[in-house]
Amino acid sequence: MKKPAITNLDIHPIIKNRWSPRSFSEKKVDPAKLRRIFEAARWAPSSFNEQPWRFIVGEKGDDSWDKLYECMVKFNQDWAKSAAVLIMSIGKQSSSKGGTNKVYQYDVGQSMAYITFQAEAEGLVVHQMGGFSADKARELFSIPEDYVPLTMMALGYQDSPDSLEGDFVKMEKAPRVRKPFGELVFSGSFGNEARLD
Amino acid sequence: MKKPAITNLDIHPIIKNRWSPRSFSEKKVDPAKLRRIFEAARWAPSSFNEQPWRFIVGEKGDDSWDKLYECMVKFNQDWAKSAAVLIMSIGKQSSSKGGTNKVYQYDVGQSMAYITFQAEAEGLVVHQMGGFSADKARELFSIPEDYVPLTMMALGYQDSPDSLEGDFVKMEKAPRVRKPFGELVFSGSFGNEARLD
Repeated sequence: MKKPAITNLDIHPIIKNRWSPRSFSEKKVDPAKLRRIFEAARWAPSSFNEQPWRFIVGEKGDDSWDKLYECMVKFNQDWAKSAAVLIMSIGKQSSSKGGTNKVYQYDVGQSMAYITFQAEAEGLVVHQMGGFSADKARELFSIPEDYVPLTMMALGYQDSPDSLEGDFVKMEKAPRVRKPFGELVFSGSFGNEARLD
Repeated sequence: MKKPAITNLDIHPIIKNRWSPRSFSEKKVDPAKLRRIFEAARWAPSSFNEQPWRFIVGEKGDDSWDKLYECMVKFNQDWAKSAAVLIMSIGKQSSSKGGTNKVYQYDVGQSMAYITFQAEAEGLVVHQMGGFSADKARELFSIPEDYVPLTMMALGYQDSPDSLEGDFVKMEKAPRVRKPFGELVFSGSFGNEARLD
């Protein structure tokens, strides 16, 4: 099932076609694709080139996948159980210049967008999650104090919505919605819609 | 000048070719391109679809550009003065469910990555900055308390490195560097390089 962005504007097809399905097939992802996906993240930009992103990856059947799965809340486990790949994004809080890196979360978000973009280019789909236990992740993966688990991601090949159970089918088929342009893009002062004409 | 990512892996050309030059020509950016660029950001994913991103845009010659320019530290003003477009990213801290949205900065980072991809697809370049006064931005643009200025971005057409002054020329021509894969992508435990083979 496809759910392209509902827009009359000619945005790049990778951006237009990307969405966050919950229906994953168990089909294995070629490790060469995974290497390109993380390579894309590696070349993301960051403040002072700090590269505050770290990733833990698990491929279904390995110990890392099992531990990542264990970190998720049940709601996410219920649909992500068939995902071939699980990823956790982790941010380094401190700056190499001393003190805190104020934009470390922002920069990890950018790197995960690069992962998303490359995954879509590889014919894969991703679904990000906030619902997991950072404390459990810290314990299971021995994550040092300066590093903060931020999000998780299921990655793999998309399956039919009907392979999902219960309410997930309805959620999968629900239309995509976004706030209107005028509530997001301003000029001159906050809240004043940019004209761009 | 091009500075593609130094990699043997076949990552998407938008990701491979993107970099952050400081040399901007004054050539105006077609507003239709800007509309597509913000449309790309609008369709980025976010936690609970909160869409915590807001943008202030200025086109060179308008009042919004002048105010954005005024927010920057001198170092950034010195090279960004010729950029046709300036953008400020702003994050909404609170969640619509009450309390703080823990990943609002992460999600704004994602949306700015979507802006970056679409800009690159449009033949434009961008350079993000952390060096600006959020307090001045809050005052000049009447930004409400719940919203936090996070980054700024220069956007436009690239110019020759030699149009830059002083040390900027050397910085523009410096090679791009990134941490090795093994310091970023782990499996099983934090710090343990993922094999992916």
